[in-house]
This record gives sequence, C-alpha cells and structure tokens, in this order.
Amino acid sequence: MAESVTKRSEDYSKWYTDVVQMAELADYGPVKGTMVIRPYGYAIWESIRNICDRMFKETGHVNAYFPLFIPESFMKKEAEHVEGFAPECAVVTIGGGKQLEEPLYVRPTSETIIWSMYKKWIKSYRDLPLLINQWANIVRWEMRTRLFLRTTEFLWQEGHTAHATAEEAEAEAMKMLEVYRILAEDYLAMPVYVGRKSDSEKFAGAVRTYAIEAMMGDKKALQSGTSHFLGQNFAKAFDVTFLNKENKLEYVWASSWGVSTRLIGGVIMCHGDDKGLILPPKIAPHQVVVIPIWKSDEEKSLVKGKLESLGAELKAKNIRYFIDDNEQATPGWKFNQWEMKGVPVRVEIGPKDVQKNQIVVVRRDIKDKQFIPMDNAGDVIVTLLETIQKDLFNRALEFRNQNTFPVSNYEEFKKIIDDGGFVKAFWAGSAADEVKIKEDTKATIRCIPLNQTEKGVCFFTGKPSDTIAIFARAY
Amino acid sequence: MAESVTKRSEDYSKWYTDVVQMAELADYGPVKGTMVIRPYGYAIWESIRNICDRMFKETGHVNAYFPLFIPESFMKKEAEHVEGFAPECAVVTIGGGKQLEEPLYVRPTSETIIWSMYKKWIKSYRDLPLLINQWANIVRWEMRTRLFLRTTEFLWQEGHTAHATAEEAEAEAMKMLEVYRILAEDYLAMPVYVGRKSDSEKFAGAVRTYAIEAMMGDKKALQSGTSHFLGQNFAKAFDVTFLNKENKLEYVWASSWGVSTRLIGGVIMCHGDDKGLILPPKIAPHQVVVIPIWKSDEEKSLVKGKLESLGAELKAKNIRYFIDDNEQATPGWKFNQWEMKGVPVRVEIGPKDVQKNQIVVVRRDIKDKQFIPMDNAGDVIVTLLETIQKDLFNRALEFRNQNTFPVSNYEEFKKIIDDGGFVKAFWAGSAADEVKIKEDTKATIRCIPLNQTEKGVCFFTGKPSDTIAIFARAY
Repeated sequence: MAESVTKRSEDYSKWYTDVVQMAELADYGPVKGTMVIRPYGYAIWESIRNICDRMFKETGHVNAYFPLFIPESFMKKEAEHVEGFAPECAVVTIGGGKQLEEPLYVRPTSETIIWSMYKKWIKSYRDLPLLINQWANIVRWEMRTRLFLRTTEFLWQEGHTAHATAEEAEAEAMKMLEVYRILAEDYLAMPVYVGRKSDSEKFAGAVRTYAIEAMMGDKKALQSGTSHFLGQNFAKAFDVTFLNKENKLEYVWASSWGVSTRLIGGVIMCHGDDKGLILPPKIAPHQVVVIPIWKSDEEKSLVKGKLESLGAELKAKNIRYFIDDNEQATPGWKFNQWEMKGVPVRVEIGPKDVQKNQIVVVRRDIKDKQFIPMDNAGDVIVTLLETIQKDLFNRALEFRNQNTFPVSNYEEFKKIIDDGGFVKAFWAGSAADEVKIKEDTKATIRCIPLNQTEKGVCFFTGKPSDTIAIFARAY
Repeated sequence: MAESVTKRSEDYSKWYTDVVQMAELADYGPVKGTMVIRPYGYAIWESIRNICDRMFKETGHVNAYFPLFIPESFMKKEAEHVEGFAPECAVVTIGGGKQLEEPLYVRPTSETIIWSMYKKWIKSYRDLPLLINQWANIVRWEMRTRLFLRTTEFLWQEGHTAHATAEEAEAEAMKMLEVYRILAEDYLAMPVYVGRKSDSEKFAGAVRTYAIEAMMGDKKALQSGTSHFLGQNFAKAFDVTFLNKENKLEYVWASSWGVSTRLIGGVIMCHGDDKGLILPPKIAPHQVVVIPIWKSDEEKSLVKGKLESLGAELKAKNIRYFIDDNEQATPGWKFNQWEMKGVPVRVEIGPKDVQKNQIVVVRRDIKDKQFIPMDNAGDVIVTLLETIQKDLFNRALEFRNQNTFPVSNYEEFKKIIDDGGFVKAFWAGSAADEVKIKEDTKATIRCIPLNQTEKGVCFFTGKPSDTIAIFARAY
C-alpha cells in the first residue's frame, strides 16, 4: 500500500487495474475471467444497490428471485435472443454425477426464464402490470476481461415488467432510464448522455434499447445502464397472453432494464487520479476518515480524549466515518492509503489542534486543506460533502462537454476519435455505414439523444438529417 | 385465492406445499428441483437478510463476493469435502461454445474458492482475523426436492473467517451460533435447541459442526443454521500460512457458518395453521393490513376520509402497513387472502367504526377481535405486535417442550419417534449405533446440547453417560 499506482497519463489501462487492486476493490478469481469483489469494493456496491433498491420500490417494483439455470430449449425460443447470447454462455451438462438430458445454460440474462413463469402467473388484465426486479449474478463467457468492466461473472439487477399496452411498457422503459440517469448523475456524480441505441447496438430480443452513456477519463464511453422496450417478443416466444377488459386474448407487452457492478468501474474511471480512487460522498463506504496524530503518550491521551466526542458529532449528523487509530502505521502511510481508497474527506487531529479546539480537514478531490472549529465540525463537514458531490459532477461534466465535438465531415470525425473524445453530429447513415465507421475507427453510435428538434446534414452521407447521434470508442 | 389449503392434520406435506403456493411465497421453476422465490416470499427473505446483515456487521464482519465457478481441482484438495459435495454438484463443461479443459463446479459452498483467495491475502498475523461474509446463490443437485427446504438452487449467506489461533476460530464459530439462536428465537419466534453435531452428521471438512435445531408443526426437526470450526483443514489444503508474532510460519485457523432461504420453510411449518401462513411481526413484510368496508358511495367517502390519517398514524410508529382498498374484491375475500399470507394484524374500518371513532383489530394467530379508539391506534398496535411476537414464540416453545421426551430404553425411543416428537436422552453410543438407529427409525442425533453437567445411563447401550443428545426425524 506504500507503493503508488501507475500514472494515469502514462498508461490508462494499467492505472485502472492498479487502482482496482491497490484500493482493494477487486481481485482476479482463479478461473480465467472471473472476479472477486473484495470487501471495500463490495461496500461500494452495497451503496449503489441500496440507492437503486429504494428508487425501484418507490416506483412500485418488488423483488423476486428466479433460477440460475435456463433449459437450452428456452434460450432457443426467441430467435434474436439465442443468436446474441448462446455463444457466450456457460453450459452445465452434468448434474448429481450424471449427464443431463437437456443442457442447462447459466443465465446470461433472465428474460426467457422469467417469461416462462409469467405465463403461469398472468391470466387477465387484473394481473398487470407486473413490476418485478431481481438482484442476481450473471455469467457471460468473455475472452478479453477487465475487472468490473467485463468479467465472466458479474452482479446486477434486472427489472422485467409486463404490461397491457405497448405505450405502458415503453413508458416503463423510459421511467427506469430516468431512474438510471438520476443514479448516475445525482449519486455517482457521473454525467451521462441519455438516448436510444441504433438498431445494430440494441439488446438481442428488444424492439428498442435505451441507454445512459458516460465519458471516462480517457475520453472513451462506458455504457452504464440499459432499458429495453421488448414489445411482445418474449410474450410471443413463451405464449404469454392475457384477457383484456373487452375479454379478448392479447399478448403481453414487456420491458427489461439493468445496471451492474460495471458501474464501479465507471466511478473509478470517471473520477480517479494519480493517487487512486476518488469516491463521490453519496456512495463512499467511509465519507470521512479521521487520523489522530501524536508522538508522546501525553499527546496520545490528549488527542484520544477528543476522538470520542468527534465521533459522536459526526454520527449525530449521519456521516459515515472511520477512525483509523491503528498504531502500527504512520500518519503518512495512512494518508496515502485512504487517498488510494478515495475517501472524500480526511480529518487530522493532533495535540496542537486539540489545544486550539480545531481539526484539519482535507478534501480528497482537490487536496484543499482547512482548519475548522471542533464544535460545529459535523455541520461544516455535511456541507463540505455536499460541495464535493457537486464539484465532482461539475468537473466531470465540464470534462465531458469540453471533449464532445461537432463534426461536419468524416475526416474531422476520424481526427476527433483518434485524438480522443465524443463526436456529437447529425447522422443519416445506414447499419452498413455504422459497420464501416466501426471498422475504420473502432467508434460506434453510443446513443441517439431523445426529443430532438434540430435539422442538419449527416457528416458521413451528406444527406439531410433530423437526428443527432453520439459516437465514441467504448469499453 | 378463494380456495383454502389442505388441512394440516390431514396431510401435513400437502398443507405445506399448498401454503407456499397459495400464499404466493414460491413456485416450481422449469428445471426439476429449482424454485422461483415470488415477491412475497422474497420480501420475507429480505427481512431475514437485513436482520442477519445488521448482526453480522455489528459483530465486525464485512461482505464480499466470490466467483460461482470452482475449478474441479480445488474441490479435490480437501478429501472429506470432495467426498461430501462432489456427488451433488452441477458441473459446467462448456464455456463460450467450447469444451473446457477443466470442468467447473457450480459452488455447493465456497470454502475452497475462498481459501484459494485467502492464500493471496493472508501473509502475517496483522492480516488476521479476516471476517468475511457472502450473500450468494448455491447449487446442490437434489433428487427429492421441496420448496424452500430442499431445492437444487437456494439463497444463503456463508461466513468464512480466518484466525491466528484455534481458540479464536472456535470462539467465532460459537459467537455466530449465538447470532443464529437470536435470529431464530427473537425474530423468527422459533425456539431452537443449540448444540454440537455428532461426528457422523458434521460438515464435510469440519472439525466440529454446531447447529440450531427447531421443531416443526409435525414434530420433525429442521436444521436451521450451522456453524463450523474447520481447524486448519482448508488452510492445509490451500497452503494458507501466516507469520505469527514470533515470526514463525503457521497454518491459519478457520470457521464457516450459514443460514439459508430454508428458514422461510421453518417459519411456515413452525407457526402456520389451516388458514395458511402466520408470520412473526418482526419479519412480516406487512405487519398490518387495513381493509376498509363500505357499501354506498356515501359510506365510501366517509371511510376513505379516515384512511389517510390512520396510515399517517401507523407510519409515525414505524409500522409496516398496507391499505387494501382494491374495489374489485370483497372484504371477505380479502380477509381470507391476508390470513393466507399470514399478516399478523388485520384492521377493519367501516362506516359505523368511523362514527364511533374506532377501528376493529383482529389478530391472525388467535383470531381475537377487539375494538380500539382510532386516536391512539398506533400505540395500541405497536404493543399488540410485540405481544404477538412473544405469544408465537411461547406457543412454539410450549409445543416443542410438550413433545420432547426423555426415554430410558430403545423401545420407548422407537415409540416416541413413531408417534412423533423429539427424544432428549443420555447417549454413549458409537457411529455404528447411530446408523442402526437411523435404519430402524429414520431418526438421527439432531444435536448434543452445550455445557452439560448431568450424568446418567445411555438409553441404547446401557453404558454410563455424561452426554444428553436430541434425536428426531428431520427434514
């Protein structure tokens, strides 16, 4: 922990892996492509999970749990779905020492198994809407893996809703997209472009896919959450019908939506610096770390005497704090360690501070140091945490906006993508044009922002266009 | 939902399955032996999980997440462990469309994969103790399955701790056993015998296994939680050593402990009756259901006018309540439905009640009906919920004690087991004697209570004994 991470500017990819490992967020599992989420990383996931879970429940959803194993025949019922997912599945062929008659796919997503159950539960319009979410582990066989961003197994939530009308299902997909925007922007301090995916980038089995897309510190995009309008595709595949109010049988309409532990990778890459992780206060397991400083026993008893009342003060303000009074490490070592771990605020308190009835407060993000009176430390720190949360968002927003460029032709486009950045430009190309651009530049349409009214000319085809698209290289 | 469950006295097993399905707790999954935990069942699991998680954190544990897939070679490193678990595993042999070089076992428990990581993380006594818990899904291939009690996949938590000394590891196992006792008795209202398992019944890989054992309504036992002292077995299998304070290398000492969604089965069978589920207030998703009653529009507006203030009153007292004002169902239908779902308290409010400024309060457990003034309804109901919680525990305790019998010989033993009940008697038999008893009667030693001081004569061998054991047939 005394070591430091590779500089971000030198090798972004290595910097990222260093931060994940040295901040003890995650480690490689023994099976290639798997990840162990260590306690500190898991605590961040618990923060994110609790925020999501509360917002899901406030919007009328309930949690449930569906089986991990999906019969091969289910995977094959929706044509696009099997094509998209089957090649990247792990398959169980032996159970209880015997070869299975039908192989079982370890869930890469749960539309099929959930809709097989919805067939049992949905009979009439009175059973709708059905608004279910699941917290679960997911397996997708990955060749090129990266901790949090792309691993063979990850944790996520997946909402699966059933509705009586197309409008209602699509409104649900949009509502959850907005929940994800709030999660990203208001909690992770990570600004996102919100929009629709192009047909080539949509979920295998969806009619339309919506996504939030964030810019990382290396100016690449991270797809941070998706929400799908599934039409009647899965209802038809699993024959799920309902009696409507006119007593006629209709297929059910669907949405699904998910975010995953990938978000932790997003937080690291959106905010981190050469000293390690920087956590937004709203999701930080410890918002404040208190580091007492003393040399003699006399100083120790002086300082220690203040720790309890300081703790009580922070607790009274609902601040998540940790007092690091480990005597086997020096204050300097602790400063580095907690900077690496991205704790938003460090409090130092030494004998001189006790005499002056003050504490030293240091912001992790801008290293700003100030002395504040001990007596209203709680209030000052509450305000400071709010400021840090806002500042992190604004800094990331400014960075993203400064690195998002309009272009008027393909040469400009290629230069921006090569130099690093998002392109935001009018688009009227075809799926084949998207493939060509991806082959040339590795950039893809990240999303097509919603509610557009402007008109212009497509940078690629030169055709008139009423659609602006965001392009970037992505994780 | 208008139907009713099979009578408990007629067919206990069918009664159980009826309650699980008609209270919408769980359903059968499409793959044989799998279970879908429906929203109402999952909400109970969330209650149990939150209680455990809080107690784990208060006792110094942190959560983490380890991979689902365990390399075959890991399973084979601890001899007893592989013998116990390998035959009941699901095995992945295909990944990303290709045959895998090494088969992957879907975790039946995580000792092996976790200790392979502990080898990386533990170097010195400063890294100890390591107190990690995981919330996860587990797969054990089961031939005879029963919802919640025995399914191919289930949800659980598993604690895995590492210590510098045997004493500390064993003390940890005992501490968590006590946490489980508190969970069972103080929250699930389910009295348990606490003790050690006989060698034939211990966990595959443990030195000693401790357990809590509850009596179900049919007088059979349910193993409701286990805690293991693992000695250095897994440390040796995975070569996990640490430098002690004297700078010498030693193998690390271990404990592991777990409870699962099986507990929901325990709650059903411990408290339920012919009308369905009875939930202890502390884990009930809804502690109170409010059912408004009206006939005319005039009555409706009168009653509806009171619902909001009643809701506010309950909310102010932190009571989890649900107002069922669905107009498509009759009050009678709702009474049955919420009795089936085991909501501890039903509140009825009709036009006459409004006039008298009162509400009707009905206990689910004893069907006791009382009229209480609307004004301090919150306080009265808080007290009532506490009373119900205690009464459920006391009723179950009395039932268990009345059905736990001493015996002085094997004939008496067989009669008790055949008639139904626990036997609590002196024991000095061998492992072979345990096998004989199991073959004759299907009863096993459920546990050997801790801290014994009495002496007597073994009912089976006639030898002197200082050990009382609890025997029963078990789920």
